[in-house]
Amino acid sequence: MKSRVFHFLAVAVFGLAIVFASSSRVSAQSDPLPSWNDTAAKQAIIQFVGRVTTAGSADFVAPPDRIATFDNDGTLWVEQPMYVQLAFALDRVKAMAPMHLEWKDKQPFKAVLEGDMKTLLESGERGLVELIVVTHAGMTTSEFSSIVTNWLATAHDPQFKRPHTDLVYQPMLELLAYLRANGFKTFIVSGGGVEFMRPWTEKIYGVPPEQVIGSSIKTKFVMRDGIPTIFRLPEVNFIDDKAGKPVGINEYVGHRPIAAFGNSDGDLEMLQWTTLTDAVRFGMIIHHTDAEREYAYDRQSHFGRLDVALDLAATNQWTVVDMKRDWKIIFPFQKQ
Amino acid sequence: MKSRVFHFLAVAVFGLAIVFASSSRVSAQSDPLPSWNDTAAKQAIIQFVGRVTTAGSADFVAPPDRIATFDNDGTLWVEQPMYVQLAFALDRVKAMAPMHLEWKDKQPFKAVLEGDMKTLLESGERGLVELIVVTHAGMTTSEFSSIVTNWLATAHDPQFKRPHTDLVYQPMLELLAYLRANGFKTFIVSGGGVEFMRPWTEKIYGVPPEQVIGSSIKTKFVMRDGIPTIFRLPEVNFIDDKAGKPVGINEYVGHRPIAAFGNSDGDLEMLQWTTLTDAVRFGMIIHHTDAEREYAYDRQSHFGRLDVALDLAATNQWTVVDMKRDWKIIFPFQKQ
Repeated sequence: MKSRVFHFLAVAVFGLAIVFASSSRVSAQSDPLPSWNDTAAKQAIIQFVGRVTTAGSADFVAPPDRIATFDNDGTLWVEQPMYVQLAFALDRVKAMAPMHLEWKDKQPFKAVLEGDMKTLLESGERGLVELIVVTHAGMTTSEFSSIVTNWLATAHDPQFKRPHTDLVYQPMLELLAYLRANGFKTFIVSGGGVEFMRPWTEKIYGVPPEQVIGSSIKTKFVMRDGIPTIFRLPEVNFIDDKAGKPVGINEYVGHRPIAAFGNSDGDLEMLQWTTLTDAVRFGMIIHHTDAEREYAYDRQSHFGRLDVALDLAATNQWTVVDMKRDWKIIFPFQKQ
Repeated sequence: MKSRVFHFLAVAVFGLAIVFASSSRVSAQSDPLPSWNDTAAKQAIIQFVGRVTTAGSADFVAPPDRIATFDNDGTLWVEQPMYVQLAFALDRVKAMAPMHLEWKDKQPFKAVLEGDMKTLLESGERGLVELIVVTHAGMTTSEFSSIVTNWLATAHDPQFKRPHTDLVYQPMLELLAYLRANGFKTFIVSGGGVEFMRPWTEKIYGVPPEQVIGSSIKTKFVMRDGIPTIFRLPEVNFIDDKAGKPVGINEYVGHRPIAAFGNSDGDLEMLQWTTLTDAVRFGMIIHHTDAEREYAYDRQSHFGRLDVALDLAATNQWTVVDMKRDWKIIFPFQKQ
């Protein structure tokens, strides 16, 4: 190619690149969050992203530090009438019961087998941990991953009669994508089990396994007949809830986030850790206010109780999303 | 812009893009690893990367699964005459000694203050853990990060009389960059403290904090006069060494790597976990054979002992790098 032609083409390429870049920016900015009503919550998100991504601005944050953390249950998907992982554990107890005849006289298993949720919940944290440990340990990590994947492929939500992975919040999927398009790295920081989430978070949320933080049980590396395996042990390793969330973020991510999204008091400390600093930061609480399209609950709920964090939202300038008012649709299958 | 002109330019752009893409590919392929001699080790790396990145090949691995894990001490930087983090801990003991008059009669502190390495090493794992806990706990995570950064800015390696961060292996920096250029995500998986490494790994290795896995002590989230802090506690949380490495990789990354790089028996289980499967995988051991340019050590060394893993290398088809034979230069400052 002759150099003058080359030069002309180079200029043309450069010009076109600018045209493409600006048009795609304009089109992205025209409605990055189509399932959000044009209320204060949406404006707060867009204003925050603008401030931290504008080069030269005093509030500019370099891409490597654009860390955003999202709770999962009740923030990205439905957590009523019970956490999905608890539904999984109950189904596992039923599936395993023929091998454990003693369970029909032993709590909390007896309550599970009799469908007695009241007694089960009265067994408290200790009962639930026992349930989780029994149903989540005693196998290799890849065996557990297959069990989760198979269960999710067939289990249905009792209210909406759909697979659980259909019941993710469309406005939050758009928010995840919008942040990533603006150079953010999005992490899930959930009280749920990390190995319960990792098999499907990439496909459903676009969040790869290494960006999922959660509760865990201990594991052990074993060479079994020359084959390396990681075996799941019946012992709690880490509870990624409440004050455990900032601890987990520090341990697994090693950055302090600049934006955090939650829906319950379990997210309070994550919101504090993220936002209570001199810099421009963003905290958001999803408030379940829509009894018609999803659920309405807060201070009295067994799952996802939102009480102290709601009271502290105004003081701390956390944006509270009113699902009924702020979201056009709730689920992806409601898209036009 | 008229549409015919636009069409012409679009074709030109596309054509040029191909020209640029292929020329950069050719130029990258002409020598992606310039500090490696053209021996079997270099050829093994290039052949492996070619196999797993060639679309349509039976060995193709999709980018999200291109996870490569690197040990740090002795694999990416110098670990003799002692681990850098141990040198840091010894300096901290000396700096803190005026506040701890009891240390002059108490092991292992007495040995440190007297420069008695023999007695110190005889105190074994228990003594070393005590040293680490005392020097690494009792402050917030951001205070600790500052202490590390300040120490690294002034400390010098006793042999090479240079900052420790100068003593990273140039061939390994090229390897990290080469893998990343081929869609790999590079992780550090070190027995060293995760919060000792995170302040500098991005700058030195291009590995961001969230891709660094290491040993850790427990931490606690505390609201202190309304300011959220994470406080470092004098208790071991996780030892990321030997069988702890695959456990840590599973816990923190959630993928099984497809390539692993180490230099000691501490990396044995990581190499097994990564490579002992039916698929095409890559394991590499850096063998320190160059007494003149760096150090020569293996089976008898206190730090970075390489014994069992070296014996198993041939059977497991792990590539053993002979530093003297395979590396043109050792450190970045030796570049022409």
